[in-house]
Amino acid sequence: MAIRRIEEVATRRLAVKFSGNDDQPARPSHDGSTDDAVFTSLSDRDSVRLLDTTLRDGEQMPGVSLTPDRKLDIARELDATGVHVIEAGSACTSEGEREGIRRVADEGLDATVTSFARGVKADIDRALECGVDGVNLVVPASDRHVETKVGSTREEVLETVEELVAYAKDHGLWLELLGEDGSRADLEYLERMAETGFDAGADRFCYCDTVGAAGPERTADIVSRLAALGPTGVHTHDDLGFGMTNVHAGLRAGADFVHATVNGVGERAGNVALEEVAIALDRCYGIETVDLEHLYRLARTVSEATGVSPPPNKAVCGANAFAHESGIHTDGTLKDGAMYEPYPPETVGRERRLVLGKHAGRAGVSAALSEHGVEVTDDQLATVVERVKDLGDRGKRVTDADLLAIADDVRERERERQVELLDLTASSGSGLPTASVRLRVAGEERVASGHGSGPVDAAVAAVREALADEDVEFELDSYHVDAITGGTDAVVTVVVELSRGDRTVTVEAAEADITRASVVAMVDALDRLCGDALRQASGPTPADD
Amino acid sequence: MAIRRIEEVATRRLAVKFSGNDDQPARPSHDGSTDDAVFTSLSDRDSVRLLDTTLRDGEQMPGVSLTPDRKLDIARELDATGVHVIEAGSACTSEGEREGIRRVADEGLDATVTSFARGVKADIDRALECGVDGVNLVVPASDRHVETKVGSTREEVLETVEELVAYAKDHGLWLELLGEDGSRADLEYLERMAETGFDAGADRFCYCDTVGAAGPERTADIVSRLAALGPTGVHTHDDLGFGMTNVHAGLRAGADFVHATVNGVGERAGNVALEEVAIALDRCYGIETVDLEHLYRLARTVSEATGVSPPPNKAVCGANAFAHESGIHTDGTLKDGAMYEPYPPETVGRERRLVLGKHAGRAGVSAALSEHGVEVTDDQLATVVERVKDLGDRGKRVTDADLLAIADDVRERERERQVELLDLTASSGSGLPTASVRLRVAGEERVASGHGSGPVDAAVAAVREALADEDVEFELDSYHVDAITGGTDAVVTVVVELSRGDRTVTVEAAEADITRASVVAMVDALDRLCGDALRQASGPTPADD
Repeated sequence: MAIRRIEEVATRRLAVKFSGNDDQPARPSHDGSTDDAVFTSLSDRDSVRLLDTTLRDGEQMPGVSLTPDRKLDIARELDATGVHVIEAGSACTSEGEREGIRRVADEGLDATVTSFARGVKADIDRALECGVDGVNLVVPASDRHVETKVGSTREEVLETVEELVAYAKDHGLWLELLGEDGSRADLEYLERMAETGFDAGADRFCYCDTVGAAGPERTADIVSRLAALGPTGVHTHDDLGFGMTNVHAGLRAGADFVHATVNGVGERAGNVALEEVAIALDRCYGIETVDLEHLYRLARTVSEATGVSPPPNKAVCGANAFAHESGIHTDGTLKDGAMYEPYPPETVGRERRLVLGKHAGRAGVSAALSEHGVEVTDDQLATVVERVKDLGDRGKRVTDADLLAIADDVRERERERQVELLDLTASSGSGLPTASVRLRVAGEERVASGHGSGPVDAAVAAVREALADEDVEFELDSYHVDAITGGTDAVVTVVVELSRGDRTVTVEAAEADITRASVVAMVDALDRLCGDALRQASGPTPADD
Repeated sequence: MAIRRIEEVATRRLAVKFSGNDDQPARPSHDGSTDDAVFTSLSDRDSVRLLDTTLRDGEQMPGVSLTPDRKLDIARELDATGVHVIEAGSACTSEGEREGIRRVADEGLDATVTSFARGVKADIDRALECGVDGVNLVVPASDRHVETKVGSTREEVLETVEELVAYAKDHGLWLELLGEDGSRADLEYLERMAETGFDAGADRFCYCDTVGAAGPERTADIVSRLAALGPTGVHTHDDLGFGMTNVHAGLRAGADFVHATVNGVGERAGNVALEEVAIALDRCYGIETVDLEHLYRLARTVSEATGVSPPPNKAVCGANAFAHESGIHTDGTLKDGAMYEPYPPETVGRERRLVLGKHAGRAGVSAALSEHGVEVTDDQLATVVERVKDLGDRGKRVTDADLLAIADDVRERERERQVELLDLTASSGSGLPTASVRLRVAGEERVASGHGSGPVDAAVAAVREALADEDVEFELDSYHVDAITGGTDAVVTVVVELSRGDRTVTVEAAEADITRASVVAMVDALDRLCGDALRQASGPTPADD
């Protein structure tokens, strides 16, 4: 995630500054005013309920595996967000999976907790053992799945449906019947399947675009016929980029229930993203689903648990969803928060941020300089903007340290470095990782050593130790290393964020040696953040020493 | 991208194995056959043309900055893919930007090359200086943008349109007029703007959902009225997850031109993704746009140049778009490639892959074992599957090394380790990074040292040196380190992939010390991959030594 740790220009305080002028209309409508009439066009349904399958279809994403503890963490967040049904897993998968489902079911959540079950009785029994409220019973619907995959016939599958739906209902379970690969099924057969299910007592039927193959016309066609038979949901995948489009088409055609996963995790291109369904239904149709303000927190919980970070350019939860870089956008956003945002970031529990780069303009650069207490004349500002853009032109991210160095130069301030790295040695391997540093701090040499969990940790400990006697407090807010690919000699990019009081400085360093890159970034950040305090603490610096 | 380097079970050869039974119908239709009639429902237009704005709107993504060289690389790939119009940048941004646009314009591409221009004459002049074929002239359309951002009036903006369109046309430019924030504009005003543009000679008008605020009903409403006035395009953003939905709605309403970016890069939640528009139009409507087989290569070029990797669960270009883990899916896919895929991966220049984890089943595990030449009985296979799932249950990815260790154990093979790490020392800092290792190789101790660009590179060089006298060749195919976040003491996950002939082994190691993790992973992979060859090369191993 190269973008995550891009320089945030005084994020927090600017966010507060801007939040005062968020006068966006509650929702867009034809004439720009808040005319709610437009919201009725989606469907006549009163409400749309969401089933979250992050813990089942989401977890089937290759490489993702959730322990029972993680499942419970996510389920709690889903419940706090107000998701109506939580599909907690597939009880047939393994003992660990059943343990996870059991713990979610036992948690006393408001949500209905279900397990996936294939069309075999043993799967329903296993779900029952886990104490779930209901099951999502999946049987093959397309001939490809009925015949080639399962080796069965259409009629046999319908007999199974009749038998298992009745069995599950006899055991007090809420039951949703899913026709797998429904989008590629014969439509008449799919209708017979839904009818058979409803006749046997199924609570709902779900149209499944299992492989993400359908367009919205086909979705609407099928769903309109299924919805005439009973309560119908839609389960869509994003293989053609039509995950949301098909949800929309399905709801228009009469569905009132949507399967989704947080961050859109799931097999292949993933499922439709819960947070997108929720925000789109709210903003465009005034349809309430879940607590929107909880969405970002939920997204982060899932991202941490699955190890799958949403990309920066992801609606609602991506790092850039409410970030602005270009001059036009930053300038506009400073004038009116709604200028380049469809809704205020606070709606989904987030904050706005501005960043600098080749598209920077006067307004954004000026705001960033003020945050660091740097005053410039109009002419100087123009030059700083030009040089920030030059740096961006060369493909560089522009950090605080870059901006401040440019400003010093433009103001012809010969800034004396207060913290400088003179020497570094780090050693690790079979023994305890150890490092030593020699720094010049406010004109005086300091040497120190440290140990840690690895060479970087040891070196950072040594830097801290070298400054331990100074009366200067700082926090290492974040330490990030870009994913390394290519080879063992690839250049490693390290970004550290240090804060002192309410001021934050972010510095990036890139070297082939991860230890050196880490220490260089940290020392540069210390110099920028604590330089003044260190100079004052040490008294006047010896001239030319 | 935690998922990228998940174990690929013999990807290449399995891909070949499966490719024989890809008998998917060309496109889905109502009865599962290849009935093309369904494709006519999108619009009556003969064709849809694509404008790619990766180099302009895409590059405005915070943190992304493309040098002229990078711009040219991407432009060449866009042209090779058959994109109709390439918006190469915004000539007013900076000198570096103009250099980039100039080089794209001078390349002699088949595509029409354009520059973005704000509603000021100087921007058109700058675009002309770059030698472009056309401009995308952007003027504010919503009152918020007309009044608050630009401080102008509706009438003044229309006068500007009249003047600048005529000016650009007089200078021989192709001209597309864009009404910024059109989705939040007064519809009558937007129509007047389009009319004014067409009257002055504009080649096209573009409906812009600049902030991603609109739903498809509003999009259709506006576009249908604009398309009645002249050739109309759609420019959509994904803030509500409706990027594709609005493209679909716009095309149905009469648009015949789509703005998109590769990988959906762009400000905030990004633009609609070019590859999704292309594959969806092809699969659902039989509409040709660009050369689909080139899409993956294009996506990788953009991902490398921007530093923004698409997430694994991204349609067309994500690492998992054609990957299968769960038992049901793997089993089905082994029977029929089309079972869980909407179209063959080769369509977009990719290959299928299978991975192992907690949802693994017999078919997938059996295929993976065969790839490593390991034979097991049915009972043994059942046990191996059980233990692979156990490992997955504990939240672990399952690598080749894990699978083979489990298989050894189940078959009660006391496998003697042939390559073992006994000692490691690595040192770096101000001097040349250096490392030494002590290994036991086929029963004999080997010591060696090496140097490199950092401690990891030095340690890997030492391992290579220690094996230099052995007659065993291997390649380090890939070395990957997960992005590190949290702190300097965070556990670092390293994945190495070694190959020898046509066999590949992937091993993962996680330790707080990146150097140790790297060497442990490499030594484990060497042991698995070259163990047999090393034992044979060294003759019988001394017993119990």
